[in-house]
Amino acid sequence: MRPPQRIGDTFLSDPPRFLELPEGFRFRHGQTVAPFTLAYETFGELNEDKSNAILVCHALSANAHVAGKYAADDARAGWWDGLVGYGKAIDLQSNFVICVNLPGSCMGTTAPNSIDPNNGKPYGSSYPWATIEDMVHSQKTVLDHLGIEHLKAVAGGSLGGMQVLMWAVLYPDMVGSIIAMASAAAVPVQGIAWHIIGRKIIETDQDFNGGDYYERHAAEPLRGLQVARMVGHMTYLSNEALEEKFGRRRRIPTPQFEIDSYLEYQGKKFSRVFDANSYIRIQSAMDEMDLAEQYGSIGKALSAFRSPSLLIAFNTDWLFPPPEVRKVHQAIEATGVSSTHLEIETMNGHDAFLIDYHLITQPVRDFLANLKHD
Amino acid sequence: MRPPQRIGDTFLSDPPRFLELPEGFRFRHGQTVAPFTLAYETFGELNEDKSNAILVCHALSANAHVAGKYAADDARAGWWDGLVGYGKAIDLQSNFVICVNLPGSCMGTTAPNSIDPNNGKPYGSSYPWATIEDMVHSQKTVLDHLGIEHLKAVAGGSLGGMQVLMWAVLYPDMVGSIIAMASAAAVPVQGIAWHIIGRKIIETDQDFNGGDYYERHAAEPLRGLQVARMVGHMTYLSNEALEEKFGRRRRIPTPQFEIDSYLEYQGKKFSRVFDANSYIRIQSAMDEMDLAEQYGSIGKALSAFRSPSLLIAFNTDWLFPPPEVRKVHQAIEATGVSSTHLEIETMNGHDAFLIDYHLITQPVRDFLANLKHD
Repeated sequence: MRPPQRIGDTFLSDPPRFLELPEGFRFRHGQTVAPFTLAYETFGELNEDKSNAILVCHALSANAHVAGKYAADDARAGWWDGLVGYGKAIDLQSNFVICVNLPGSCMGTTAPNSIDPNNGKPYGSSYPWATIEDMVHSQKTVLDHLGIEHLKAVAGGSLGGMQVLMWAVLYPDMVGSIIAMASAAAVPVQGIAWHIIGRKIIETDQDFNGGDYYERHAAEPLRGLQVARMVGHMTYLSNEALEEKFGRRRRIPTPQFEIDSYLEYQGKKFSRVFDANSYIRIQSAMDEMDLAEQYGSIGKALSAFRSPSLLIAFNTDWLFPPPEVRKVHQAIEATGVSSTHLEIETMNGHDAFLIDYHLITQPVRDFLANLKHD
Repeated sequence: MRPPQRIGDTFLSDPPRFLELPEGFRFRHGQTVAPFTLAYETFGELNEDKSNAILVCHALSANAHVAGKYAADDARAGWWDGLVGYGKAIDLQSNFVICVNLPGSCMGTTAPNSIDPNNGKPYGSSYPWATIEDMVHSQKTVLDHLGIEHLKAVAGGSLGGMQVLMWAVLYPDMVGSIIAMASAAAVPVQGIAWHIIGRKIIETDQDFNGGDYYERHAAEPLRGLQVARMVGHMTYLSNEALEEKFGRRRRIPTPQFEIDSYLEYQGKKFSRVFDANSYIRIQSAMDEMDLAEQYGSIGKALSAFRSPSLLIAFNTDWLFPPPEVRKVHQAIEATGVSSTHLEIETMNGHDAFLIDYHLITQPVRDFLANLKHD
């Protein structure tokens, strides 16, 4: 096996792969989209006994490109390049990492903006509303395809962390350990409310047209998506960070507040790469997951899971505040299984799992090093 | 003078009055709207030496109807009826209360939705962007009309509290005392960001048409205003209250979250009584006020004010968090004038000044009782 080419502190990664499902993908709520393509990427090498596979689950706006660059002159590396790589916390020298672009997302997997071959038009509003279980199911489908029957770990943050927990619920024997950050067994009401408002903003944009806007407005990103993203972005930032980065400062010489142009920039950037139908579907999937509601309690949901867990909360995260993470930790411990639980101090809010690599690297490295080799 | 008719724990109030300004009202940014009508109400009786006048300043969505009912069968009394009335904290047995509907608001004063007699059409987008100084100026105009040269107190919460502080800055000798709740010398960045997002939501609604929507959509309230109000409403609620009142509960038997239908109810109710052009103008006025920016520091702004102040913060208010109120308190104390500063514990967030009368009545009563009689 060739060692990967190094590019600065990252590496040259393989291009995305695509698993074609001619029979289609059946969503939990009953609809089947056929044919269906699952985009995924792998990093590092699967060892002979297939015992070093780590599934990484991505969050709302990310994709299967966890780490590395496709080309040396790519502006940015994968979305978790700070944590996953050669010599990094999830070390590709010894681990094989898989990530699947989730159903509903528009980053390679068949999506609302994909063309339905049955009528030559984008799926639009007819695309199903995915669930976290569907996301797990799509990952399981890729793992089956790769012949992987056991996962050393499942790791992710935010929506990714919710998938991690759902893995422990649905496939407790297959999962050797879990690492979930800035995440919980359900989105608390404040997060739900902001998600709901974001969806209403998108629906308020008349150009959205109930989700069937591709042919009418292909050239222009939807303004509703931009503004909804601003709402989402606010939930990722701590008040401390807002005060320090922007405060009430103006964009001299204009009277515009810096926070205004920052939100505009974020909204517009996002709308160029992401799709409104995907956005509302993925956020809705987050909101619908509720292990306590679905299984009677978080403890009951996780009762069959007996493997190590690393749960990381960030003190300024107000989308998944520390008490929500603590609930998961306590539910696991109540089943008689020990769980490693950290509350990390940072001003980076919810996004800390994508920023504070100096704070999360050592805990993840230690956690993986301490896993029993079976 | 006849005593007012009692209606339960409130009273029969006088109808609104209107001060007509044939020469118009000149806004701080230079525009004049002429003719101009200022709607105001008065409560109680002005004493002979005109020493018992208390100006109450209303907040974003309120109006001049501070207390009492216009008719015995009115569903609701005035917006501060819990604090202002016969035998209440601001006691109408001994005080004369004045409240003016602020320029930009659509509750009686000439507003963006008023007809411009010059062309027979609503002002719409041509209506000026008011400032807090304009609000104070409008109140001063009414007081001049009533022959009131001294105010025993100026009182208000939220945007009303910002006007209170501006009174202390602009007319320090006329103001005998100030009472400001859930308010500060500037809206912090988190509040600005939500206000900005709210304005963008309204502007995203194509029916808004840049503010000239009255003739095209007179029958239907703007959806953008409804959703923007949901954003605003969120900033008034504490996370604690959200958790207790709604949590993740569903509206059985539908899968809809209770918080969703609550936000819809609030948004729709608001859009039936309030106007989008007024909403964005008043929020923008809040955002633009910044005593530290305008005067060099809060202390410099308030340097000429030597009278008693009562500043009340609520611990769960995240629009005007307690540290912002403390800044005003400290700035006043640094000028050598003592200030009464309370941080009240409540789960009612920013709206506590409209809810927690059992917590604010005694401090206001004591504060007014202790004022020197001059």
